[in-house]
Parts: sequence; C-alpha cells; structure tokens
Amino acid sequence: MEQLFSDRIKDVKASEIREILKLAARHDIISFAGGLPAPELFPTKEMEVVTQLVLETMGEEALQYCPTEGYNPLRDHIANRMKPSGIEVTRDDILITSGSQQGLDFSGKIFLNPGDVVLCESPSYLGAINAFRAYEGTFREIETDIQGMVMEDLEKALKESKNVKMIYAIPDFQNPSGRTWSLERRKKLIELANKYNKPIVEDNPYGDLIFEGERLPSIKSLDTKGLVIFLGTFSKTFCPGLRIGWVCASPEILNKFIMVKQSADLQCNSMSQREISIFMDKYDLDKHVEKIKAVYRRRRDLMMDSMKKYFPESVTWTHPTGGLFTWVIVPENIDTKKLMEKSLATIKVAYVPGASFFPNGGVTNTMRVNFSTMSDELIVEGIKRLGKLLHEEIKSLGHQSNEPLYREEFTIV
Amino acid sequence: MEQLFSDRIKDVKASEIREILKLAARHDIISFAGGLPAPELFPTKEMEVVTQLVLETMGEEALQYCPTEGYNPLRDHIANRMKPSGIEVTRDDILITSGSQQGLDFSGKIFLNPGDVVLCESPSYLGAINAFRAYEGTFREIETDIQGMVMEDLEKALKESKNVKMIYAIPDFQNPSGRTWSLERRKKLIELANKYNKPIVEDNPYGDLIFEGERLPSIKSLDTKGLVIFLGTFSKTFCPGLRIGWVCASPEILNKFIMVKQSADLQCNSMSQREISIFMDKYDLDKHVEKIKAVYRRRRDLMMDSMKKYFPESVTWTHPTGGLFTWVIVPENIDTKKLMEKSLATIKVAYVPGASFFPNGGVTNTMRVNFSTMSDELIVEGIKRLGKLLHEEIKSLGHQSNEPLYREEFTIV
Repeated sequence: MEQLFSDRIKDVKASEIREILKLAARHDIISFAGGLPAPELFPTKEMEVVTQLVLETMGEEALQYCPTEGYNPLRDHIANRMKPSGIEVTRDDILITSGSQQGLDFSGKIFLNPGDVVLCESPSYLGAINAFRAYEGTFREIETDIQGMVMEDLEKALKESKNVKMIYAIPDFQNPSGRTWSLERRKKLIELANKYNKPIVEDNPYGDLIFEGERLPSIKSLDTKGLVIFLGTFSKTFCPGLRIGWVCASPEILNKFIMVKQSADLQCNSMSQREISIFMDKYDLDKHVEKIKAVYRRRRDLMMDSMKKYFPESVTWTHPTGGLFTWVIVPENIDTKKLMEKSLATIKVAYVPGASFFPNGGVTNTMRVNFSTMSDELIVEGIKRLGKLLHEEIKSLGHQSNEPLYREEFTIV
Repeated sequence: MEQLFSDRIKDVKASEIREILKLAARHDIISFAGGLPAPELFPTKEMEVVTQLVLETMGEEALQYCPTEGYNPLRDHIANRMKPSGIEVTRDDILITSGSQQGLDFSGKIFLNPGDVVLCESPSYLGAINAFRAYEGTFREIETDIQGMVMEDLEKALKESKNVKMIYAIPDFQNPSGRTWSLERRKKLIELANKYNKPIVEDNPYGDLIFEGERLPSIKSLDTKGLVIFLGTFSKTFCPGLRIGWVCASPEILNKFIMVKQSADLQCNSMSQREISIFMDKYDLDKHVEKIKAVYRRRRDLMMDSMKKYFPESVTWTHPTGGLFTWVIVPENIDTKKLMEKSLATIKVAYVPGASFFPNGGVTNTMRVNFSTMSDELIVEGIKRLGKLLHEEIKSLGHQSNEPLYREEFTIV
C-alpha cells in the first residue's frame, strides 16, 4: 500500500510526544508533559451565557456557512487586541484560523517547496517542525541564548544556506525553552529579514501571558516591508477547545492564506467565532487573562522553588517570565527519553523529552516541563519525585556536571 | 514578493465562484448559487438545550484540547449512522474532520505528488478540484452519463494515463449535476480500482438527503481491498457552521489522515463535537433529516415545475432524486458566465456558471442551480425571471438547440 501515498507523507511518523501524552493522560500520572491551559480557569459559566445569547440573537447565521476570512466583529476585536504588542491593523489584515497550528500548516503550504530550508530556533516548537515537514521542508537550527536567536549565526545561515524560504521564531516565552527575545534581537531580526528578503513567521501564542516586566514589541510591530506573518490564538488566553486563532499579515501574503484556508476547510466554526466575540463584548477578556496569569505565575514560582529545593546541583533550568514552560538541562550522560520510561513506570511523573524539539536531532539531555496544568500540590510533589529520580540517576551513571557557566546562562532569575 | 511563495501556491487564484457568491449574498438577489442548507430548518432551539447540557455536564473537557481522532461518543454515533449506506465500521475507523472539505484537502496531501493525475467525474465538485490543485494535482475528466462515470472511459484512463493516483467520485446526488450512480457502475468502479490498485475518494455529503426510491449501497460498502476513503459531513443534515465532518478509511490509510490532521490543526472543535453527539443522544437526527428532506423535496418539485413552465424548449436540466442541486444545460452559444453578469444586473438572480466544475475547461453552456436555500415563492419567481432572460438571450443570439437526445439523457424524471 505504501506506493499509493505521496512523497511528502511517506516519512511522516506518529509523533513520539503524542504517544507520551497518551500515557501521561492516565489519572495516576503527575503530568508536566502537555501544553494544556488549566481547565479550572476556563470561563465555563460565562460561556453558558454567551452561547445562549448567540443562539437566541443570531442562531441561524451562527449555524450557517460564513465567509472564509471570519466573523467581522471578531476580526475587529482581534485587531484591537494586537495593539499592546505594538501592532496597528484592521480587520482586513486578519484571517481566522483553526488555532495557530493551522497558521503554521498554511505557512508551510504557502512558502515551502520540497527541500526548502526553514531557519528556526534551536530548540523549536515540535508542532511547527511537523507542520513544515509535511511540505518536505528541512531545517537549519540557529544557535540561541537567553536573548533569542544568535544573530551572527542567523546571518551566517542566511548567507550560506541555499533555498532558505522562511525564518520561524517564537519570541515570547518560547516553546519549549520558556525564553524571551530581547528588543535588540527583534530589531536585528527585522534588519536581516529585510536585507535577505525572507518572510518571518512569528508564532505568538503566549505573549499575553506575561508575569513580570514590560511587554516587548512584537516582531510584527517592527516590520517595515510586510515580511512578518503573525500567528495568534485564543487557546492559551481563553480556551483551546474552540480552535480559534488568527493570522495577521500584509495583504499580498494574507490573500494567499485566505485562498489556502478556503481549499483546506472553507472557514472556522461559525458559532465559536461568535461566542468569543460576544464574550469580549460582554466581559473583560483582559481581566480573565489577569486571573490566568496570577495562577500560572504562582505555579511557575512553586515550580522554580521546588526545582531549587529538590533538583541536583548539576541540573539547570530556565526561569520563564511568562507562558507555560520551563526547560530543564540534565547532565549529558542522561538520556531523558530513556529516563521518561523509568519516570512513568516508577515515580509516575511525565514531562516531554527535549530531543523532539531539535529537528536535526543530537541533543538528548533536556526536558520540557509545563507548570500551567497541574495543581499547586502536584507541582511540588511531582518535582520532588523527579528530583529524587534525577539524584538516583546521576549517582548510578556517575556524576558528570555541566560547566557552571552553562547553568548561569540558562537560569535567568 | 511572488518569488517568496511555493510553486504549489503560485497559480492558486481566488475562486470565481467565491466572488459570485459574495455578490449573490446581497439581500436583493434571488440566489440559486450557494450550496447552503435552509437555515430556517436548523435545530436552533434544540442547540440551546444541547450547548447548556454540554457546558453544565462536561464544560471543562469541552473547552480543553481533545484527541486528534475526535470525541469517542461522536465517532460511535457516526459509525452507526453509516449503516444505512451499507458500511459496517467502528469508531476506530473514523477520524473527525473540519467538514468534508478538510477530508478532500487531506486526500490531496496524502496521495498527490506534483503532476499526479486525479480521475474525476466531468463535471466535478469545484471545492475538490481546488483542494487537489493546491497539491499540484492534475485532472483527467471521465465522461459521465445519467448512471455516473462511463466505465469504458474510466478503464481507458486507468490504462493510458500515467501517474494516476486516485479516483474521485460523488456517487449520490452529485455536486454539481444532481445525478446518482447506478449500482452496476458502483460495482464496476470497485472492480477497476482493485484491478489497477488505485484509491477511491468517495465524497458523500448528500447521501442522507434522498427524496424517493431506494438508497443504493455506498461505494465504501462494496470495498473489498480497503481502497475506498469515505468522506461524510453533518453540514447538510445538521448544520455547516459547526464544521464537523469525518473520514472513514482502512487503518493504514486512516492513520495517515490522523497524522496529517495533527500537523494541520491538532483536532476539531471540542464543544461542537460534543454538541452533535449529545444532540443525537437526546433527539432523533433521522427525524430531523426527514423534516429537511420534505422541504427540499417540495422545493425540488417546485423548481422542476417552474423550469418546465418558464424555461425555453432548448434548455435541459437534471431531475435530482435527492441533494441540493440541479444542473442546467443551455444552448451552446450561450456563455453562462457572461449571462450571469447580465442576470445579476437586470433580473437579480444568481446561479453558478458551470465552467468552473470542469477542471480542464471547455464547457461554457451549463449552470448549477440550488433548490434548498430559497423560499418556495422565491424559487418560482427566480426561475420565472431566469426563464424570461433565457428566452430573450436565445432570441437575440439566434436559436441553436441541443440535440433532442441530449435533453432526454439529462432529464431523468
């Protein structure tokens, strides 16, 4: 049967993470694996009000086909919501997508020929890697440090790599590293993209979830040539089950996204678009986001404190100032994928082994740890157990500590 | 900017139909253009009950991420609903998709390399043509008659065309022609697909909307080698705004669809999946479909009667026994695209010029006419106006009638 399939699909394999997440979903597991928002914070009661309103006042249109671009009042709300990140646009610059994952898929479809190169952070978001792979994209990982992509390496790649078709970046509270790009790097990125005329896909699902400090301008807000495609979503600030995200791009590029959306699935859910829009008419989404942030900030603090208390000296981690994830680096002789099997079987704690976030492989001693989903108690308990396992592992394998500087670099407090 | 884009997207143009539909949406237009279900038949009241139930009893999970495959109780319901078309499957054979349009997009992604050939009915569904084109698929149109694809021509194409990768068929109340395949042709199609080892994409959005006669077994139900991919949807039997459809395929093929779904948009709307599932627990969807059918049947009859009354002798049309569309053939010297401009401007009636349904072009004297959306009064009035315009057009261009036999072939009463 294999010969029936297209070349692009022949090498697509079930994601390892997906299998891990299935195991991690068992009720006896403390899971730091998923990138799930805390469900107890969903505005379920308000949604009851809002869905009734939508069905009572605009039921027929909410159940009917609607334009591909999306529900106009929602597009207006979104244009408005982008102002805090420095972006001044109107509804005409917005296409509603099925989460930002669909924006990633469409980016691959619109920009990549087989073999084309995506320049991405090392590590980068697995879902984007898989989306681009499905169009036979390849990857040149760009070195990163606490300020984001290292610009010297980016320029080197732009100069030397053939067929570079786009730069993919997650500048705010990156998945998986939890790190945030400095303003200087954002500006330099635009400069280089302009110089080499390459589109930038700015994936920004977490920007609103800022715990402390000042919000930096988005890369899109610094765009001077219309080369930046901004991907946003309500999955982390409202709820992911409605699958509502958006693409914001300059007209010529957005037009391609609209045409691709039409052939891909015609439009997003008419009802959910109205639900979110009416929610924003009736309630204060920013206030709701503040509530989420307070909880995530507390959980982040709890996790940082617990890691400090229970993790071995030779283990380091990032201190995210927003978002959902921290990134843990263990001694190089520990393979976190193998450790995960042990962790699930003995201490019943799940995380995501970091290897999958490096599209070209080679790094086996990292893990992505989520702090948004588990309760305060389970965060402390889970990190305690994981610390114990790491201590045992280091003891049994023989200590091989990272350079102290390496730790310094990753632990931003 | 053009050089930034992928080859597959460079030739994608905004669909002409899309522009027509935008014009047709004006409130002063009698539109037979869209493929829209009648919104007054949507179960809006029941949806109010159902959404409340979902949010009250399973609010958190309905707003959270859910598995890519879909909500299991809905998959069970769907497996069940496929029995009347002769398909015996379980939830494991079903993937929930964003309408059947997404099933078409994924079919293109999974099967087509650039230049690969899709064998399709002539004419065929425009949305599928666009979906396959976005993967650089090409088309060999297979001759059709009132029984479906002409099997001699299909076998000729299978023998002679290089790189045939799939057969695409809409066997029940086809879009745009309104015609239904005979059982004999269905059986022969399976025989040929097996012989040449080619997958069949069976697009079946209208099968449930049968007005008279006995329901024929779906092509999938005759599948002996697991080569048939069945695409279904709730868009025509429930409502399209929720964007819930499905793919039913053999495990090896379905597995590819699941992986593609994951990288495309992770999953379908968690809430809408539950809404439809709970609706089916609580209410009788078949009874609801009966209600829809009664209205569409009456409108079909009204349209047929009006066409008979008002259309010129030299115009012919199909007599669909289900679905949403009839297909009208006018004298060859009338270009229905040009006529449409006149029609919108003068008589304020819209239809879809048939040319777009022929992927390789060349047929300009047809139109797709929808009978499900407009009220009884507007159907009579619109057809009356269209008849008048056609009379005038034929008079001004000079009469050039079709062969009588040609009319016979298309008017199945």
